[in-house]
Amino acid sequence: MSGAGPLQGLVVVELAQMLAAPLTGMLLADLGATVIKIEPPTGDATRRAGQEVNGLSSWWRLFGRNKYSVTIDLKKPKGRDLALRLIDDADVLIENMRPGKLEALGLGPAELHVRNRGLVILRVTGWGQSGPYKDRVAFGTQAEAMSGFAFGNGYPDGPPTLPTFPLADGVAGYLGAYGVMAAVWRRDRDPEKRGQVVDLSLFEALFGLLGPQATTFDQLGTVAMRQGNRSPVSVPRGIYRTRDDRWVAISCATEEIVARGFAAIGRPELIEDPRYSTRQARRERIDDVDEIMQDWIGRNDLQTVVSRFTEAQATVAPVYTIEDILQDPHFSARETVVEVDTTDIGPIKIQNVFPRFDETPGAVRWSGREVAGADNSEWLIERLKLTEEDFADLRNEGVV
Amino acid sequence: MSGAGPLQGLVVVELAQMLAAPLTGMLLADLGATVIKIEPPTGDATRRAGQEVNGLSSWWRLFGRNKYSVTIDLKKPKGRDLALRLIDDADVLIENMRPGKLEALGLGPAELHVRNRGLVILRVTGWGQSGPYKDRVAFGTQAEAMSGFAFGNGYPDGPPTLPTFPLADGVAGYLGAYGVMAAVWRRDRDPEKRGQVVDLSLFEALFGLLGPQATTFDQLGTVAMRQGNRSPVSVPRGIYRTRDDRWVAISCATEEIVARGFAAIGRPELIEDPRYSTRQARRERIDDVDEIMQDWIGRNDLQTVVSRFTEAQATVAPVYTIEDILQDPHFSARETVVEVDTTDIGPIKIQNVFPRFDETPGAVRWSGREVAGADNSEWLIERLKLTEEDFADLRNEGVV
Repeated sequence: MSGAGPLQGLVVVELAQMLAAPLTGMLLADLGATVIKIEPPTGDATRRAGQEVNGLSSWWRLFGRNKYSVTIDLKKPKGRDLALRLIDDADVLIENMRPGKLEALGLGPAELHVRNRGLVILRVTGWGQSGPYKDRVAFGTQAEAMSGFAFGNGYPDGPPTLPTFPLADGVAGYLGAYGVMAAVWRRDRDPEKRGQVVDLSLFEALFGLLGPQATTFDQLGTVAMRQGNRSPVSVPRGIYRTRDDRWVAISCATEEIVARGFAAIGRPELIEDPRYSTRQARRERIDDVDEIMQDWIGRNDLQTVVSRFTEAQATVAPVYTIEDILQDPHFSARETVVEVDTTDIGPIKIQNVFPRFDETPGAVRWSGREVAGADNSEWLIERLKLTEEDFADLRNEGVV
Repeated sequence: MSGAGPLQGLVVVELAQMLAAPLTGMLLADLGATVIKIEPPTGDATRRAGQEVNGLSSWWRLFGRNKYSVTIDLKKPKGRDLALRLIDDADVLIENMRPGKLEALGLGPAELHVRNRGLVILRVTGWGQSGPYKDRVAFGTQAEAMSGFAFGNGYPDGPPTLPTFPLADGVAGYLGAYGVMAAVWRRDRDPEKRGQVVDLSLFEALFGLLGPQATTFDQLGTVAMRQGNRSPVSVPRGIYRTRDDRWVAISCATEEIVARGFAAIGRPELIEDPRYSTRQARRERIDDVDEIMQDWIGRNDLQTVVSRFTEAQATVAPVYTIEDILQDPHFSARETVVEVDTTDIGPIKIQNVFPRFDETPGAVRWSGREVAGADNSEWLIERLKLTEEDFADLRNEGVV
């Protein structure tokens, strides 16, 4: 059973483009679910999104991995019928159209549940299925701005700062996979085996992990301001420049770790010094604290800094680029990055399946299909029992 | 069944402190699982972490919500025995001790699986259960530095930038909840009903959502540099200052949205101008593009900017603080923030349960227990059938 993944037997149909919903689909496929991605006959827009490798988006190669690709034009009645037949046999439908669009295609939850009452339907949008902004166009950037993330990210003397990767989509993709499995588990225990609709919004997925800001504002009136690399909880905490022009991150979240950190830089006496012996005291002299750290770190090479802090059981980490990651022995020992074959450019490097299951770990079986409809034959002809002639007709009509 | 949550019937024991693993526990509890948090008799360290509200951490109030609190000293043999008896009846154990510590307490997976073969064990650590760094002390900061996140966050002329909230813990908490449910689902379908160990590391959880950087570096040799509010995919994309000194985020991920954005600022002709008509062209003149956007936005108030972009079906969002969030009609309509009662300070505001299930939505039933061991009576006396005298003895011995 090893390699098969814990979700072997779960069948998922994905009607979704960039990026949160396809990430949920990828997580399910990584753990062994059968994920059938329906693309328009012209190919999913994600195939052309972002940086391309040999004419095919690297995002597609990642987020499309382990999924089957079937092409269907949902706007054509015959296409809708094919999609319905695939969904009839599925446990889960993942979609991220704007609210109402699925219904307009004749694929709304009410209709689907008449045919397949056990279907779990994950609906992913920027603003959710309800509320005054539900019809607004939204990408992750809007969620990053309105959840409170951007306001708190960056420097006090600079503007709010967005991430340079799709953070809101990423966290929503993770949360969506949880939502799907919670709904599937409940369905399986329900005497009537009923599926339900799970409404996942990017803004709430990100807001949900920003911490207790609603409570602290409500009770204390505080709004967390941008503070660069500093932290409200941990002093010292920052990114410092080493003598060999590398960056290193230090954080001291407990008093014990602070003492070890001061010992690591050869200043164990500081933890007894009333100017630095409590978090409150250090916070009041935070510029001094950062200067003490930067001074010692700036006189040592990265390797020395990491060794000294590690030996002292303090917390330290070099700031890595992907180039560093690919050379690191820990990433290597854990096979955090693996190789997977492609039909056009041979093996490529790609992240492994996370988290790790000791009995049924799942695997990267293939990367995003190079050709849209690569699995039409298996799913439309073999499973739905179209004849070759029917299929050729549908192709000529632009349905598949 | 409404309000009960899809995970009603799932029993989870949590042996975990700040922050990823307790977030997983919270997500499970939010959806109706019975989550029994075992604290040391002196109380969990999270009770004193970060900003306090009336002497109790706001993080605790959030991450402890919907959980039962039971106090047990695991280092005492009688304490271990109580924990084992609770775990015997559980579906899931969540723990985040350093690798080997659970085993040293006599609570390792091998021993637990002898007693309860169906137990799913989620193990959350900074570096995972294997590899050369597994014994290093690690908090989220180290994962944020070594996953590649920090290097890419911030400005090209500034240092790598860490988040000011526990991002790595947050994404790992989300991914852990998915991992738990995938393992539970597999166990339930396994003829032998076997649980397994799920190894979740903070660094891989975060690395897993940073995108296809391994592929692009491997194939193209590119390393994504910090670029402030700009994006490699979307031009224009940024945060701009309005006339009334607010910030607004704009992103234009597709050519259609770019055209609408230019129309929104009264410059529809730009999309026909060869200097701005393709993403490649705009990227080459990105300073000009940002200046054009900032110029118009700087001459208008936030309200006008948002209205104009929204009417044009372009993407726009004000940069919100938590204060803005609590006043916003969309957050309000969706009840993104709700009130929950406490025993010490009355009702407090707290985020709702995400995502939203239409049949069994779950609920915020209570916030983190104000008193450690608040549920000892229910779980130790009633469920484990300790007598009041036994319980009093255990209390005197410091076991509970």
